[in-house]
Amino acid sequence: MEIKSYIKDNENRFIEELLELLRVPSVSADKKFRDDVFKMADLLKQKLETAGVDKAEICETAGYPIVYAEKMVSKDAPTVLVYGHYDVQPADPYELWDSPPFEPVIKNGKIYARGACDDKGQMFMHVKAFETLVKAGELNCNVKFMIEGEEEVGSGNLEIFVKNNHEKLKADVILISDTAMISLEAPSITVGLRGLSYMEVEVTGPNRDLHSGVYGGAVANPINVLCSMIDSLHDENGRVTIPGFYDKVVELSAEEREALNRAPFDLGAYKKDLDIAEVQGEKGYTTIERTGIRPTLDVNGIWGGYIGEGAKTVLPSKAYAKISMRLVPDQSSKEISKMFEDHFKSIAPASVKVKVTPHHGGEPAVTPTDSAAYAAASAAFVDSFGKEPIPTRDGGSIPIVSLFKKELGLDTVLMGFGFDSDAIHSPNEHYGVKNYLKGIETICQFYKHFAKK
Amino acid sequence: MEIKSYIKDNENRFIEELLELLRVPSVSADKKFRDDVFKMADLLKQKLETAGVDKAEICETAGYPIVYAEKMVSKDAPTVLVYGHYDVQPADPYELWDSPPFEPVIKNGKIYARGACDDKGQMFMHVKAFETLVKAGELNCNVKFMIEGEEEVGSGNLEIFVKNNHEKLKADVILISDTAMISLEAPSITVGLRGLSYMEVEVTGPNRDLHSGVYGGAVANPINVLCSMIDSLHDENGRVTIPGFYDKVVELSAEEREALNRAPFDLGAYKKDLDIAEVQGEKGYTTIERTGIRPTLDVNGIWGGYIGEGAKTVLPSKAYAKISMRLVPDQSSKEISKMFEDHFKSIAPASVKVKVTPHHGGEPAVTPTDSAAYAAASAAFVDSFGKEPIPTRDGGSIPIVSLFKKELGLDTVLMGFGFDSDAIHSPNEHYGVKNYLKGIETICQFYKHFAKK
Repeated sequence: MEIKSYIKDNENRFIEELLELLRVPSVSADKKFRDDVFKMADLLKQKLETAGVDKAEICETAGYPIVYAEKMVSKDAPTVLVYGHYDVQPADPYELWDSPPFEPVIKNGKIYARGACDDKGQMFMHVKAFETLVKAGELNCNVKFMIEGEEEVGSGNLEIFVKNNHEKLKADVILISDTAMISLEAPSITVGLRGLSYMEVEVTGPNRDLHSGVYGGAVANPINVLCSMIDSLHDENGRVTIPGFYDKVVELSAEEREALNRAPFDLGAYKKDLDIAEVQGEKGYTTIERTGIRPTLDVNGIWGGYIGEGAKTVLPSKAYAKISMRLVPDQSSKEISKMFEDHFKSIAPASVKVKVTPHHGGEPAVTPTDSAAYAAASAAFVDSFGKEPIPTRDGGSIPIVSLFKKELGLDTVLMGFGFDSDAIHSPNEHYGVKNYLKGIETICQFYKHFAKK
Repeated sequence: MEIKSYIKDNENRFIEELLELLRVPSVSADKKFRDDVFKMADLLKQKLETAGVDKAEICETAGYPIVYAEKMVSKDAPTVLVYGHYDVQPADPYELWDSPPFEPVIKNGKIYARGACDDKGQMFMHVKAFETLVKAGELNCNVKFMIEGEEEVGSGNLEIFVKNNHEKLKADVILISDTAMISLEAPSITVGLRGLSYMEVEVTGPNRDLHSGVYGGAVANPINVLCSMIDSLHDENGRVTIPGFYDKVVELSAEEREALNRAPFDLGAYKKDLDIAEVQGEKGYTTIERTGIRPTLDVNGIWGGYIGEGAKTVLPSKAYAKISMRLVPDQSSKEISKMFEDHFKSIAPASVKVKVTPHHGGEPAVTPTDSAAYAAASAAFVDSFGKEPIPTRDGGSIPIVSLFKKELGLDTVLMGFGFDSDAIHSPNEHYGVKNYLKGIETICQFYKHFAKK
């Protein structure tokens, strides 16, 4: 019980160190936080050094750096490559936070801050689990850390880094904690992730803002047009209308769907938590299926015209939207992005001009459940939670998973300890203190089992 | 030619004084300009005093004050009540202005500033025309000025003022310059105005912003829903689908429509000016008809989700839009606002909540062309432009016109000297120096003709 007692003895410091990380606003999407993102990389490097790595490096890229570190215990031991990210989502709208996003507080057993769960909290469990094993003299795997700072903006420079460092990144498995589990009573491991295509569209009507009285009714209003175009992207059954969109979607067998729907899920509690009267989605699929095995299209942002206080009778020149699609196997992000662009341009009326710009994307992935690494992860959950974890399909995207498979030939184990209700990407993001400490313990157990593979 | 030479001799000062007014950012819609709006009222009072009124007053209201002034020349002379407004539209987006909106500049014979045309430039012509007549000893009408500071936010307090001051506002006609003419070669007088209903809508999906990966596809996205609802407000023929919307619309006779379409209009030049490939509007009507005699519905602003730089995969809690309708006789702003609200709520799916808030509105109006005042205005245009003015229907709204008719029993003459291309309510609003000076001259002629009625 050396491991458990080390975690117990150090839990206050483990939490304090995470809060230290959470105070750095390392928002990769917004240039005004540029210095903080770099500062965060340095801080993480120090933390890895203190934890006991042989070496830690700041690897420069064309964007934000990748923090790499390793400890090699033996040539014969298996090697685990830990991936995570130290950048966070933008925190706006700030006014909806109960406490400032970069001044972490602990309330009711939860740490509130941007990045508390996604991914600083989850990533840092690996650093602290590593420290625990080192200090307890129980590290029997080689460990490599690759923590990037551009995950929230599409990991644009990670691919180049991975391509150029095949030898350095040689490992037996990738270990990532950046997903959710069902609950502490029903632990789960993510075995499927959705891919992503993220587009920005601009619709231009007249060449300048017009008076809606003088021109309204005779000149196409780009907001009205954009709304019509967006509306037309779904049919009455909630299916995406882009030609070819579903062509490569792998349909699950009746058995697979049944197994998926056996995961504990309470629709009443789900609706209550979100304060919605009804769920809404593709006809013929359950909520678990809609977020796990079906592709979707959502508008993530829209703006145009006068959005200030009061009334302005303007017929605007331009309207904009950010539109993203979640993809499932075997859809290709690149192909879907192209389909979207072609389709969106084709449905524009002659009265407007349309520009489509792709943001980052990522491929969908499924991870094997018959591997030694999955078996080790499963055994680790049994050790720490007393229960076999349930394999689940997650709605989010970690594009890097398919990249690792392609470039390094490695499978990934997605051992996530967050909850769907952690409000990641939202105001009041939080992460359970218990999840954090249980996660550290489970990761330690994983290494012990994996060393025996 | 006393009048013409007085204008000629003083034109530089007339322009300079207008620029002085334009430097005050009297934006009524935005509280941060509150002090400037009050400052503007004081400045206008001073200008009226200098121009030669018997008395000028700042009349307090629950909002911004009304500047009232008068000069009574004789009990037997006809009385003209001049209405105008000293507040202006918000100037944003500031970045689209070629020069700062409240630092007026003259380029190519045009004055560029917010309010240059709407309505400081047009309103101030009346002050300078009045000064001219007084100084030339040719004022043979009683004149009353009622210049308000809340026209751009719906004239909320003017109605009360008018109701409480029937005696004070007693007159024979209302004279307003707040509309456009076709061109200096084809002068025109506006004889019809559209009314307005202006609504703000809020669509709420889940009670917080969500991760679009975790929830996307299963939970209604309020932006997508809002887009569908907005799209459904028009049918495939460009007609508004709100039940009852067209019930009270007065259909013009074939002769009336033909007369309307005789006004000079070059569709090619119109499209070129706006840089659009096609116009778009209600099927079966020309561009002149669409903006003059047909009601319309336009989204004036829309916002929701992440609208910053880069990408954020959020499924937002809320989406908003400002939606306005231009009305024609005999539609009622109050009735249409209610119809909109009922209909908009009725089309919301069960997965969202909808809130509808009306902003200001105003009734449509037509003004008579067989009155002594219209004859005087027409004769004034012949004097100064050498041409009979064309009666036109204007797409904009001046709600006050129907209020004056109802409360004071007075008809209005809409003698506007702006152009549709003056970019009122838009960046780079401007007003021709020639329009300004010709307007002053025409107004002087109006008084001369009207005195003989």
